[in-house]
Amino acid sequence: MYNEFNAFVREQFKTPEAFIPLHEPRFFGKEREYVMDAIDSTFVSSVGEYVNRFEEMMAEIAGTKYAVATVNGTSALHIAMILAGVQSGDEVITQPVSFVATCNAITYCNATPHFVDVDLETLGMSPRALEARLNEIAELREGVCINKETGNKISCIVPMHTFGFPCRIDEIVNIATKWNIPVVEDAAESLGSSFKDQHTGSFGLLGTFSFNGNKTVTCGGGGAIVTDNEELAKRAKYITTTAKRPHKWEYYHTETGYNYRMPNLNAAMACAQLEMLPTFLENKRELAIRYQNFFSELSAIEFLTESETSLSNYWLMAVQLKDRASRDQFLEKTNSESIMTRPIWELMNELEMFNNAPCGAIQNSRFLVDRVVNIPSSVRIK
Amino acid sequence: MYNEFNAFVREQFKTPEAFIPLHEPRFFGKEREYVMDAIDSTFVSSVGEYVNRFEEMMAEIAGTKYAVATVNGTSALHIAMILAGVQSGDEVITQPVSFVATCNAITYCNATPHFVDVDLETLGMSPRALEARLNEIAELREGVCINKETGNKISCIVPMHTFGFPCRIDEIVNIATKWNIPVVEDAAESLGSSFKDQHTGSFGLLGTFSFNGNKTVTCGGGGAIVTDNEELAKRAKYITTTAKRPHKWEYYHTETGYNYRMPNLNAAMACAQLEMLPTFLENKRELAIRYQNFFSELSAIEFLTESETSLSNYWLMAVQLKDRASRDQFLEKTNSESIMTRPIWELMNELEMFNNAPCGAIQNSRFLVDRVVNIPSSVRIK
Repeated sequence: MYNEFNAFVREQFKTPEAFIPLHEPRFFGKEREYVMDAIDSTFVSSVGEYVNRFEEMMAEIAGTKYAVATVNGTSALHIAMILAGVQSGDEVITQPVSFVATCNAITYCNATPHFVDVDLETLGMSPRALEARLNEIAELREGVCINKETGNKISCIVPMHTFGFPCRIDEIVNIATKWNIPVVEDAAESLGSSFKDQHTGSFGLLGTFSFNGNKTVTCGGGGAIVTDNEELAKRAKYITTTAKRPHKWEYYHTETGYNYRMPNLNAAMACAQLEMLPTFLENKRELAIRYQNFFSELSAIEFLTESETSLSNYWLMAVQLKDRASRDQFLEKTNSESIMTRPIWELMNELEMFNNAPCGAIQNSRFLVDRVVNIPSSVRIK
Repeated sequence: MYNEFNAFVREQFKTPEAFIPLHEPRFFGKEREYVMDAIDSTFVSSVGEYVNRFEEMMAEIAGTKYAVATVNGTSALHIAMILAGVQSGDEVITQPVSFVATCNAITYCNATPHFVDVDLETLGMSPRALEARLNEIAELREGVCINKETGNKISCIVPMHTFGFPCRIDEIVNIATKWNIPVVEDAAESLGSSFKDQHTGSFGLLGTFSFNGNKTVTCGGGGAIVTDNEELAKRAKYITTTAKRPHKWEYYHTETGYNYRMPNLNAAMACAQLEMLPTFLENKRELAIRYQNFFSELSAIEFLTESETSLSNYWLMAVQLKDRASRDQFLEKTNSESIMTRPIWELMNELEMFNNAPCGAIQNSRFLVDRVVNIPSSVRIK
């Protein structure tokens, strides 16, 4: 089977021998033209036309009124949580299945993650697990959601659309509303993914995206915060750009700000990449269908697909093995042949810095971490 | 006088009518070539040959054993302070005359700035003021420097080389050593500046640099941490790159990490700009001499120059007016004619978030903030 799989992957990427990475960027749009233009303009830093254009394009794509560029996805999450009201000592509900950036951003707010399980079908936060956990440990005190066990405020819910598969975000937002908790949607991995015809990232009070080198669309490093709330959008821009009061020459900063600006040089690349997004999505979907056909012949391995009500960007494609031993064998037999594959991240509640954090029943997360593996998912050059 | 000054500036920059900024970048080295090469390589993100080359070049320039690239100067400061041991509730001694990034980075550590005065000659931290303040409020308890008045640990001293003028960093380090406090040298503005023939940034336990768009050398946004300490250099690289334990496919993070990586795209530009540094420094020094000659005719305005024992990069050139009214008039008469000039930053202890911070006598800082103005300082195109 492994030989067949390795040969199949090599055929897709037309790469007979060399290393095949999990996800590598493609620059066959206007990346070089726009980047050269940014250099020619001398506006390579935090102010520039490409930053403005990038923000317009992102608002258009996400279907939100506003988008604010940031230096990366982690910084976008950090600021979105601050704007959602997360304060020192609070708890933020998130999922154990995620890249560490989500929990790190919670830590930067001096808050603690509080883990609830994911759905097996979406790999994202489970509305049922969220509801059950809140019913178990939370109560509303004068409209504020408090964890009865710890006495801490639960000030935010951060679901994440794992590998680009949209989670059941509408139900999550409904539950959050009932408990008066704002939602920050971590859409770092789901640019181009939609749920019930609405783009991921646009359901919560704020949504965040990443444009790191391994993402569907990259600009070296970059992020974005999207929202329909004008005041929050203005504050996002303000505190990511050092919170300087506008003045023709004075330097007066009114609060603790951040240097989380996306340089115009990177924004130029991001604009060109965003223009390619429809092409990339189509190309990746075609590969997903081919993988699905390939794996449909194998009973021991399941290729993971989008749910009926959603469209995935198929950022990182994934298969589910029978058990941890099969997973490890798959990882060995592919990586040893220079076909890069990777297990899902170590569960966040297992990391040293979060293993004392509040945590609900997480049997699905534990099931998935033993079985799910990402397989090469780059846009293929035709 | 103003007409003469405005005309003089226009003559230097060969710009008869248009707006003359304070400092704009110049790209007449290999910036375009290296940036295109980074795109062609597809390594535009946090791993790439230009990041490695940038780190080698920075260590060479700073004269330190190690340099670690970061996403900007603020992030470099944040990490350097963490590595120096700054913890929640500590105090960090710095100067009121600085860009807000210095104090923001202290805040990110959940520590408090503690202000001591600057020297009139260098605009940077005054060794005398530092010593006097420590003698007044500090005591060593089992080798740990404690502020007797607040009970807090004083865990770091962060002098800043204002506008590129080196402060008396050797004396500061000696005093810090006596009090067992590590020094993080904020050299954000002083790339190319040296004190007693040693590059700024290399005197403290760690030094930090910035490559923002307005700096002597820019890459859109970027920073660097330099040190002679191998363990600290390794830790700097580790925690700026999400603190992931090396493994062929596992994702296990051992502590709270940061996404403070400089993208290879930006590093490519930084390498080309660093190659231009000697040319830029020569060009700026020539302009400084011309300004000095120009202002030597005027008794009411003093052009600020490097001290005898130091070489300044003359990043932002500066003049000192007689009083605040003269300063304001100078700002009005120049900016209204599209010659950009700017006062020194509002003193940090005057900002809302720091106005309750511990603060020594700061008469020199108050004197300077009323009188010092930056004037156009870009590299001139010949």
